[in-house]
Amino acid sequence: RINGDRLWESLMEMAKVGPGIAGGNNRQTLTDADKEGRELFRSWCEEAGLSMGVDKMGTMFMTRPGNDPEALPVYIGSHLDTQPTGGKYDGVLGVLAGLEVVRSLNDLGIRTRHPIVVTNWTNEEGARFAPAMLASGVFAGVIPIAHAYARTDLEGKRFGDELERIGWVGEEEVGARKMHAYFEYHIEQGPILEAEDKQIGVVTHCQGLWWLEFTLTGKEAHTGSTPMNMRVNAGLAMARIFEMVQDVAMGEQPGAVGGVGQVKFAPNSRNVLPGQVVFTVDIRSPDQAKLDRMRAAIEAGAAEICAELGVGCAVEAVGHFDPVTFDPTLVSRVRAAAEKLGYSHMNIISGAGHDACWAAKVAPATMIMCPCVDGLSHNEAEDISKDWATAGADVLFHAVVETAGV
Amino acid sequence: RINGDRLWESLMEMAKVGPGIAGGNNRQTLTDADKEGRELFRSWCEEAGLSMGVDKMGTMFMTRPGNDPEALPVYIGSHLDTQPTGGKYDGVLGVLAGLEVVRSLNDLGIRTRHPIVVTNWTNEEGARFAPAMLASGVFAGVIPIAHAYARTDLEGKRFGDELERIGWVGEEEVGARKMHAYFEYHIEQGPILEAEDKQIGVVTHCQGLWWLEFTLTGKEAHTGSTPMNMRVNAGLAMARIFEMVQDVAMGEQPGAVGGVGQVKFAPNSRNVLPGQVVFTVDIRSPDQAKLDRMRAAIEAGAAEICAELGVGCAVEAVGHFDPVTFDPTLVSRVRAAAEKLGYSHMNIISGAGHDACWAAKVAPATMIMCPCVDGLSHNEAEDISKDWATAGADVLFHAVVETAGV
Ligand SMILES: NC(=O)NCCC(=O)O
Ligand SMILES: NC(=O)NCCC(=O)O
Repeated sequence: RINGDRLWESLMEMAKVGPGIAGGNNRQTLTDADKEGRELFRSWCEEAGLSMGVDKMGTMFMTRPGNDPEALPVYIGSHLDTQPTGGKYDGVLGVLAGLEVVRSLNDLGIRTRHPIVVTNWTNEEGARFAPAMLASGVFAGVIPIAHAYARTDLEGKRFGDELERIGWVGEEEVGARKMHAYFEYHIEQGPILEAEDKQIGVVTHCQGLWWLEFTLTGKEAHTGSTPMNMRVNAGLAMARIFEMVQDVAMGEQPGAVGGVGQVKFAPNSRNVLPGQVVFTVDIRSPDQAKLDRMRAAIEAGAAEICAELGVGCAVEAVGHFDPVTFDPTLVSRVRAAAEKLGYSHMNIISGAGHDACWAAKVAPATMIMCPCVDGLSHNEAEDISKDWATAGADVLFHAVVETAGV
Repeated sequence: RINGDRLWESLMEMAKVGPGIAGGNNRQTLTDADKEGRELFRSWCEEAGLSMGVDKMGTMFMTRPGNDPEALPVYIGSHLDTQPTGGKYDGVLGVLAGLEVVRSLNDLGIRTRHPIVVTNWTNEEGARFAPAMLASGVFAGVIPIAHAYARTDLEGKRFGDELERIGWVGEEEVGARKMHAYFEYHIEQGPILEAEDKQIGVVTHCQGLWWLEFTLTGKEAHTGSTPMNMRVNAGLAMARIFEMVQDVAMGEQPGAVGGVGQVKFAPNSRNVLPGQVVFTVDIRSPDQAKLDRMRAAIEAGAAEICAELGVGCAVEAVGHFDPVTFDPTLVSRVRAAAEKLGYSHMNIISGAGHDACWAAKVAPATMIMCPCVDGLSHNEAEDISKDWATAGADVLFHAVVETAGV
């Protein structure tokens, strides 16, 4: 069994880096806080005897050597970046549980056949730079690195420039590494495990996603002196699209979600009808047909709404992945580990996207989940118990050791 | 007649201060650009022999003395601040036409009985700090100065601090001055004069306004892993309120408008349902009963929408003025001047709010309007012709001289 107290202490230590405003964290990718978090993680890894590789996307690969020089490594990965008002566990738990697996192996003096690589992927959240899971997407060959470098945040800063600014552009070609297997341990970020009173989620699938960024063009005009019938109202078009997205998602229940998290009005002045409104629709489903149907319905519906109001409508897909089926052998190994350790468990579909979804393109991959209070995540109030954290890390340890061989 | 070329040159000169991104201006109140605009205006006034007074709200009063030491001054005012993406004429025309009146009096060697004071009111636009017409509102005794100083912009900077920062906190108590009469010349910012092919709008009324700032509280949560039926979706509530505001305004046609120009999502991340959405509804009507009815309907409608979604709803009125009736004597004088000069004219109701609306509380006041292309304002593409600008300034000159006596 791993050392749950040590894991918890590291979680609390990391949570001091980039503190939020309500007990959580603001350690957005490629900020100074991210840099500080990386350095803290590196120092812990060095203490644990791991050697570091960094690729051109800034992803950190911390290696514990194996006995067999021919054997490909087993990867344990997740992310240390957070949402602007993020929790202490989303991503962090997976990285630090990976470190805890290594620390426990050191304590027990166990040498595995395959090397073990604890990984901190850059920009998993996609909060500052869309899309999410950017570095793992480049690693999997799905996103060209030039595209990733050119992504901009709301202030227009480029990903490539910011990565250089914090000094974490590595030497390695992205995706050059080969994986024997990939494991990711993460909080559920949803309400199911807690409601079902299970300690472990055995993750069989991940739902697919589209991020549709709409740019609506209205006529910038005075709110007071512009008669109702002369308005080209991009804000109103946006409102109607929100409602339509809601209707489309409700029409595909169960097994589908749709909503909007980011909106930008320009010029964003109380007495100016917006000339431009930019927002991103987030739709997801584990069912490819539903996902495609929702996308088509939303694009057609938005075009109709905008045409009626005379508003210009452009759509760009700024994030996408298909539904994922995780590797059945690894999934069984996770289930067996939970069983052996006596933890209650159930199969679950990941509602959120994870680096494991891209890793699954290039290696056998799977995930382990632990419950989180009220299903709350992407919220500073995100919470888990030490027991939950420990149970999942135990399962991770056993599944990884089983896979890496002794 | 005034010198239309000189007026136009000054307009073009001022437009170089705080240039926009598309041919207009970004000279928002209390920015460095505002400071620069003030200094340019002061230098012109000093060349024209005017002496400066500045009040504690930073409003500039530039005085040309009269013959009668007992006579109260005739004021000509408007504003040099702009929207973030504002036009070159909104406000600026009125201030520089006031200066042109004085320059023309100088050229003609005319000394009036009453002094003439050309005024640049601080923060007319309300773009950076709500409400609009802030300094004239304090002047008229409607807004307490402490309230004005405490207003914050989207970055949380205080009005009082920013006024001090640019060095324009004056000595005068706000509202201590007494006015014989107040004139304001402004572009229409609407489509009527151009459509009716009239050179001069004789402004008889101004519509009233409410700015209702809504703060909706939802549950910040993951867009992917939060099932539809567990969402407390403040963004969706906002969308429904937009639509409802549109319906309420359409139900009061003609003679009413309603819309939204400013929206702020928090944390504003693509994969986070917003915990908070703040936006301002702008409703206006020249008819007090309609205005009150709209406000009541919108507040009740919003409460209902939010209750249904479980979203918290708070409303604050961050801007308000009742419909205004301008002084009949001054209105007739403007009409007579247009008539005498042979300019086509019509009565008009101001769709936008103006400092004249507050001045009307403490003095006989009125306005003059000139057309603007396509009725477009609060848009960098805002445009007027030199002939239009000149015609209104001529009317201003005659109405002011008539009022100030020779
Ligand atoms: N796990 C997580 O929140 N990842 C961010 C990508 C997503 O929105 O699903
Ligand atoms: N004239 C003008 O645009 N003033 C700003 C106040 C308003 O929104 O009416």
